[in-house]
Amino acid sequence: MTQYDAFLEIAHRLADAARPVVRRYYRTAVAVDVKADASPVTIADREVETVMRAILAEEYPDHGILGEEHGKENIDADYVWVLDPIDGTKSFIVGKPSFATLIALCHKGKPVLGIIDQAITDERWVGVAGEKTTLNGKPITTRPCPALNQAIFFTTAPELFRGPQIAAYDALRNQCRQPMYGVDAYAYGLTALGLADVVVEANMQAYDFCALVPVVEGAGGAMCDWRGNALTIESDGCVIAVGDRTCREEVVAITRSTLP
Amino acid sequence: MTQYDAFLEIAHRLADAARPVVRRYYRTAVAVDVKADASPVTIADREVETVMRAILAEEYPDHGILGEEHGKENIDADYVWVLDPIDGTKSFIVGKPSFATLIALCHKGKPVLGIIDQAITDERWVGVAGEKTTLNGKPITTRPCPALNQAIFFTTAPELFRGPQIAAYDALRNQCRQPMYGVDAYAYGLTALGLADVVVEANMQAYDFCALVPVVEGAGGAMCDWRGNALTIESDGCVIAVGDRTCREEVVAITRSTLP
Repeated sequence: MTQYDAFLEIAHRLADAARPVVRRYYRTAVAVDVKADASPVTIADREVETVMRAILAEEYPDHGILGEEHGKENIDADYVWVLDPIDGTKSFIVGKPSFATLIALCHKGKPVLGIIDQAITDERWVGVAGEKTTLNGKPITTRPCPALNQAIFFTTAPELFRGPQIAAYDALRNQCRQPMYGVDAYAYGLTALGLADVVVEANMQAYDFCALVPVVEGAGGAMCDWRGNALTIESDGCVIAVGDRTCREEVVAITRSTLP
Repeated sequence: MTQYDAFLEIAHRLADAARPVVRRYYRTAVAVDVKADASPVTIADREVETVMRAILAEEYPDHGILGEEHGKENIDADYVWVLDPIDGTKSFIVGKPSFATLIALCHKGKPVLGIIDQAITDERWVGVAGEKTTLNGKPITTRPCPALNQAIFFTTAPELFRGPQIAAYDALRNQCRQPMYGVDAYAYGLTALGLADVVVEANMQAYDFCALVPVVEGAGGAMCDWRGNALTIESDGCVIAVGDRTCREEVVAITRSTLP
């Protein structure tokens, strides 16, 4: 039993509630809007967040919520839930099961609990501060990869990177053993599972990365921003995950060099 | 009943035989070799091809076989089976369920039957010349997309393209509505399903693309090489798939312009 057990039970309830909604809309002709920031939003996204918020409103009315679709609520609270109902909306829209429902709990800005839930392949990664990360209930561990030239490096798409960030992407794909693409939060899950080594992405929002931190770190890896600082709900959205902490400085040296 | 029904039954048997082998090795620490062309080969790859070849040797001893792992056999025969036991070996190795077992039958060089089988998500696309393509037995159809600027464009990775081919990739990703990455043969399945629109890849082998042709074309789409010619077992491995045939010339105009 840890201090987070009660929260974890609720986090599972959120993920359980999200799944039937996700499955109902998967590969159907869901209406696609374009938001102000040009990311596609689907009816499924909105409905998943609504069912999760309803549970939180009942269980933790004094906690804050930061969600992709329905905005901020009471985010100065000590505990804030950070929700991305469908991370990888583009993948969801094309019917590719690499999107995920992301659920994080932050305590004073620090992610202390994270779930990556894939409703189609029936995979749920769970990370809790101070505990071993699990996939579908089984403990998982990252693998050794002391140097970037031995690493499988994931990023969702080259188009994530803008301006000077492109130089970091080019250095990473040229110096790693193998660049791979296209799987959103799933890449962090594979890193936690010891099947990939490095993920670097840019221009993300808090709801895109908070849930990933406890998952990757509880499996033995590390996450940080492009300067090497710990990730919080306030971070700027340029993120690094490594399965082997030894590799972190080599990656940060590349990303930091492209920052102002 | 068509002339290909007997062959199709055997093709299903090949896919059925491949599945338990694929599943047994998925996300286990399979030994990874590096072949002469630097592509990773796993024990699973070799074993899957072996079980498929054993069925063909018994059922069609006079047919030819072209397989990724165990080479060519009697390929001057009228009927040649073209097998990629695990297309997307890199995805298989990292535990990402976008790899597939590809099974094609070519008649005098022309692909007349194709299966894309995904053993983890339990999805099987089946295309037969002159018949409607199916996914898990249900007929599927591509969607309208008359122009590239409306298209979701897939390619596995920027690194597929070499030298002058890179200009084609850059034009495609800049002119399409949305570039997406990373899913190997699965992208052609999504196009057949009417969820994506254009796939362009380069430097493939016959076993990477022959199975895709009957699947995409039987769903209403088209495939061709970068000059716009029909694909055969002899094609050079630069391939285009479109869900809407109207879009084909616009894509070919881009790819053709980069060829010698």
